[in-house]
Amino acid sequence: MWRNSLSAALLLVTIIPLSIQAQSSAKPNKREARMLAAIRAVLDAQRDAWNRGDVEGYMDGYARSEDTVFVSSDNVSRGWQTVLDRYKKNYNSREKMGTLTFSDLEITLVGSDAAIVLGRWHLKRAADEPHGRFTLIFRKTKQGWKITHDHTSSA
Amino acid sequence: MWRNSLSAALLLVTIIPLSIQAQSSAKPNKREARMLAAIRAVLDAQRDAWNRGDVEGYMDGYARSEDTVFVSSDNVSRGWQTVLDRYKKNYNSREKMGTLTFSDLEITLVGSDAAIVLGRWHLKRAADEPHGRFTLIFRKTKQGWKITHDHTSSA
Repeated sequence: MWRNSLSAALLLVTIIPLSIQAQSSAKPNKREARMLAAIRAVLDAQRDAWNRGDVEGYMDGYARSEDTVFVSSDNVSRGWQTVLDRYKKNYNSREKMGTLTFSDLEITLVGSDAAIVLGRWHLKRAADEPHGRFTLIFRKTKQGWKITHDHTSSA
Repeated sequence: MWRNSLSAALLLVTIIPLSIQAQSSAKPNKREARMLAAIRAVLDAQRDAWNRGDVEGYMDGYARSEDTVFVSSDNVSRGWQTVLDRYKKNYNSREKMGTLTFSDLEITLVGSDAAIVLGRWHLKRAADEPHGRFTLIFRKTKQGWKITHDHTSSA
């Protein structure tokens, strides 16, 4: 009996570190989980701002920098203000803005201050439902996690 | 005269560190310059492979991983083999491959093992000249700098 208990105890000592290691490679650690949550919160806030017709609120997800870029088809909009102007021009009514959803988000952390987000976007409008994919580069700035680079494509 | 020389010398002592600092923020350091050169070399090798009709050689620029993604319009091709299959299907002749050029490359290093590349692509073909932009994520792997994520859009 004692020998069996000892064997069981030794087995546990062997197994536990392995399971912790397996868990840490499969699941994000606390720091990573916080980073992922912060990035998801930015995207949630963008969606909510868009869906109340608040383009400037939506733009708060982008870094207020001259280097921020929005890429689509063969065009690059450079600088936060230019990206805002593009959105305001292309979506100049609540009808055109429609209802935005993001889905299938895949966030890849790159070190402690950068992340890549691949996802789907979908606009539900009365006349049509444009949709596609985006690749976002997030950087951790003094103002929190912000998009510095957005490459968006549509079906 | 002596006072002027001393003033000039003091002025030089003051100016030189400032100019070195300005230079180091404007220009990449040696390590960064090596990283940038390695990434450019991958893109040059891809272009050269493409232009000799070597799709597999072109694909050597991508990480041989199940996680490698190619994103365009509303589609994601996932895994190196899937991306290769897509290229082979869409460009199944020398005529369709045409002559590839990359231009306006902007490389942003993210730490010591990642980089974002924004650029233009252009295919010169007998029938048409498709062109657009790409955002690439490069990661430093055991096999060197490789593309792990490609978001490509066209005009």
